[in-house]
Amino acid sequence: MSDSIKYLLQESDIPTAWYNIIADLPEAPPPVLHPGTGQPITPDDLAPLFPMAVIEQEVSSERYIDIPEPVRDILKQWRPSPLYRARRLEQALDTSARIYYKYEGVSPAGSHKPNTAVAQAFYSKQEGVKRITTETGAGQWGSALAFAGAFFGLEIEVYMVKVSFNQKPYRRAFMESFGATCIASPSDTTESGRAVLAENPDSTGSLGIAISEAVERAVQRDDTRYALGSVLNHVLLHQTVIGQETMKQLEMADDYPDIIVGCTGGGSNFAGIAFPFLGEKLRGGQDVHIIAVEPANCPTLTKGRYAYDFGDTGHLTPLVKMHTLGSTFVPPGFHAGGLRYHGMGPLVSQTAELGLVHPRSYTQAECFDAGVQFAKAEGIIPAPEANHAVVGAIEEAIKCKEEGSSKAILFNLCGHGNFDMQAYMDYFAGKLYDQEYSEEELAMALSGLPSVAAAA
Amino acid sequence: MSDSIKYLLQESDIPTAWYNIIADLPEAPPPVLHPGTGQPITPDDLAPLFPMAVIEQEVSSERYIDIPEPVRDILKQWRPSPLYRARRLEQALDTSARIYYKYEGVSPAGSHKPNTAVAQAFYSKQEGVKRITTETGAGQWGSALAFAGAFFGLEIEVYMVKVSFNQKPYRRAFMESFGATCIASPSDTTESGRAVLAENPDSTGSLGIAISEAVERAVQRDDTRYALGSVLNHVLLHQTVIGQETMKQLEMADDYPDIIVGCTGGGSNFAGIAFPFLGEKLRGGQDVHIIAVEPANCPTLTKGRYAYDFGDTGHLTPLVKMHTLGSTFVPPGFHAGGLRYHGMGPLVSQTAELGLVHPRSYTQAECFDAGVQFAKAEGIIPAPEANHAVVGAIEEAIKCKEEGSSKAILFNLCGHGNFDMQAYMDYFAGKLYDQEYSEEELAMALSGLPSVAAAA
Repeated sequence: MSDSIKYLLQESDIPTAWYNIIADLPEAPPPVLHPGTGQPITPDDLAPLFPMAVIEQEVSSERYIDIPEPVRDILKQWRPSPLYRARRLEQALDTSARIYYKYEGVSPAGSHKPNTAVAQAFYSKQEGVKRITTETGAGQWGSALAFAGAFFGLEIEVYMVKVSFNQKPYRRAFMESFGATCIASPSDTTESGRAVLAENPDSTGSLGIAISEAVERAVQRDDTRYALGSVLNHVLLHQTVIGQETMKQLEMADDYPDIIVGCTGGGSNFAGIAFPFLGEKLRGGQDVHIIAVEPANCPTLTKGRYAYDFGDTGHLTPLVKMHTLGSTFVPPGFHAGGLRYHGMGPLVSQTAELGLVHPRSYTQAECFDAGVQFAKAEGIIPAPEANHAVVGAIEEAIKCKEEGSSKAILFNLCGHGNFDMQAYMDYFAGKLYDQEYSEEELAMALSGLPSVAAAA
Repeated sequence: MSDSIKYLLQESDIPTAWYNIIADLPEAPPPVLHPGTGQPITPDDLAPLFPMAVIEQEVSSERYIDIPEPVRDILKQWRPSPLYRARRLEQALDTSARIYYKYEGVSPAGSHKPNTAVAQAFYSKQEGVKRITTETGAGQWGSALAFAGAFFGLEIEVYMVKVSFNQKPYRRAFMESFGATCIASPSDTTESGRAVLAENPDSTGSLGIAISEAVERAVQRDDTRYALGSVLNHVLLHQTVIGQETMKQLEMADDYPDIIVGCTGGGSNFAGIAFPFLGEKLRGGQDVHIIAVEPANCPTLTKGRYAYDFGDTGHLTPLVKMHTLGSTFVPPGFHAGGLRYHGMGPLVSQTAELGLVHPRSYTQAECFDAGVQFAKAEGIIPAPEANHAVVGAIEEAIKCKEEGSSKAILFNLCGHGNFDMQAYMDYFAGKLYDQEYSEEELAMALSGLPSVAAAA
């Protein structure tokens, strides 16, 4: 085994195809349903929203889908990303485990999000689209799409949840530096925004409202499409470059993971690292134990129901079968904005239902304890979202120590925390809190599940 | 010539020795003088301030000085850093020039500063030091030393200019996440701080005051030393890993620079990229035109005097011969905190005097225009300091177009601007200004040069 701490690949090692887990699943994914009819939707239903190439990927069952050269060309800006052996963390934990982490914070937007933003911008450009609308909460996804749009000369309109728009002027400035336009949501530029403002002029917005606004502005204009930063199959697909690169890097290290840990909000960074390995296992390759870590404040996989639900609060999206807390569920304002989503990527939900993925949740304090320990050992401050993966990996490493076993633990450090220092300040000041949900509260949010889908 | 956009090396390509330009200069550098006697200082004079290994490096004339393995081991965390071919910027400029940039923003602190912070922390630890004091303005240097201190279990005390301490809580939180202590300067923890506060309780501090406080707290305690982030010979030495790696990467690209551009504050990132190439030239190798870019707001090299001066406002430091605007010169609060220093690294000053380095200055607006153009083409938002190198490189590329020549232009992108979005917001809002200095103003600041050195 090598004694390196970092495994670097060359540009030519960037994967030439995305890996599609659907090809290897023991059963086909449940169809996406039209909310009006309860029938499976057609590509034409989605055409006003997404470029056709993306729609085809959403429903494809091909194992590999070629990455267009212009996309790979832009990925080269920061990919292949490094794989680290966390030797100093291992020493700090005094563990017999071998801990590896893939680091996606090297992208100019500081997270894994540009992997799909670049692909979605490319297909939009190719199909003559002039403008992409999207929503952003904390700002990671909006930043990634702004960055990708600049490369293809596309206009990017970002509906940014108003409370973040006001609290995070630097995130806005980041997007604007790439030429994007940020609009505080709810806004008076859409019907859904105006409706919210009429009812509550002081509304600080929500991700659900921002999605409705972005979707509305996309379908209104022929030259405009919409882009989503997680949840959907094509987004998870675009993130599989992460796991594929990691496989090559672990070959350099002459090692293979016994355990893979990822954090899950919509599921895209998790799927990015885990699905290529899961595919190997499903095709008869080496076994691997896969752990999905989510926040106790938004326990979609661990406490939600596997059912058809809307992707947004305004009920403008199709229905997908996923683990959901109900589209009316509003998670508290905890510090991992990227994981504050009521649903879960359908493919992550399905693999969890099949027992191929093992979900687990942690509180904020547990996550930040782990994040600070990691920073002091490895020199990188993780994003609050990534801290969920860090704590999961550390717990597994401690188990190894207790068992006297020596396992290889791999996790995805999906982004750095340099834009999230307020969260760390609140942690140091002892200001973090966690919400305990009663059975009744969870049941109430779930009581609003769409009836049309109950039959499905 | 290769068609890559990024040249990556492996861990084993990290240089094993630092390169010392003094070995190749046509004349020895002027000695550092004791401010009381006007005589050259001895290593013993400096012993209360710096570890002995660092003092030896400061005065060494050996061409190569071995990098200790534990230092290389930590550099591996982010080194070798990538070299980029700026193909999209070339296209945007429609230039026949080949533009390359070395990117130091991949370090966890976001700049080149950790290259020396790690070395200085290592030597302190090796000599039994428990604690390092330092000053920081905008926060880049304090962050780098906090990061390095965490690796060696050293206490780090950062005197942070009070106005920044209050305006930049996130920078503070970044340092504190690595376990460092930040003190707002002027403080009541030192004699120099108390003297300032007695005169002006509302003082918002200055880099000069913060240096005096950090130096005072280092010399007071036997187990404590002081660390400086630029200017001195050993700091410039530690940065030469940048240029040495770049040489290997340009070999991969089968190219060699005709022009090298760096931004200069104290001179360390500039020397890091330029001196290894300058050494080649001085030893009879290929010619290269080297340009040092500084802010018009703090025109040390272009309008200062080459003379002996103090490094700090409180006159606690030895005297060094350098380009200086006078130690009482207070630059306006423009947005490139790392370049707001009244002096210049003595070795950069000397090479400029010898005609080996060509200085040039730009206004804020020119720098940010170039930075935004660069960001849209290359996807990275540069630090305001780095924008000075960007504008210099772009101007040279435009010259190539006008001349119809095809030169290779190399510059150092010494850090990203993710912590500097306020500067970009002020730029977009048209709020940047530049100070014009009259001959009288500059002469007045210089009239305070120390008399003991006038003879030297």
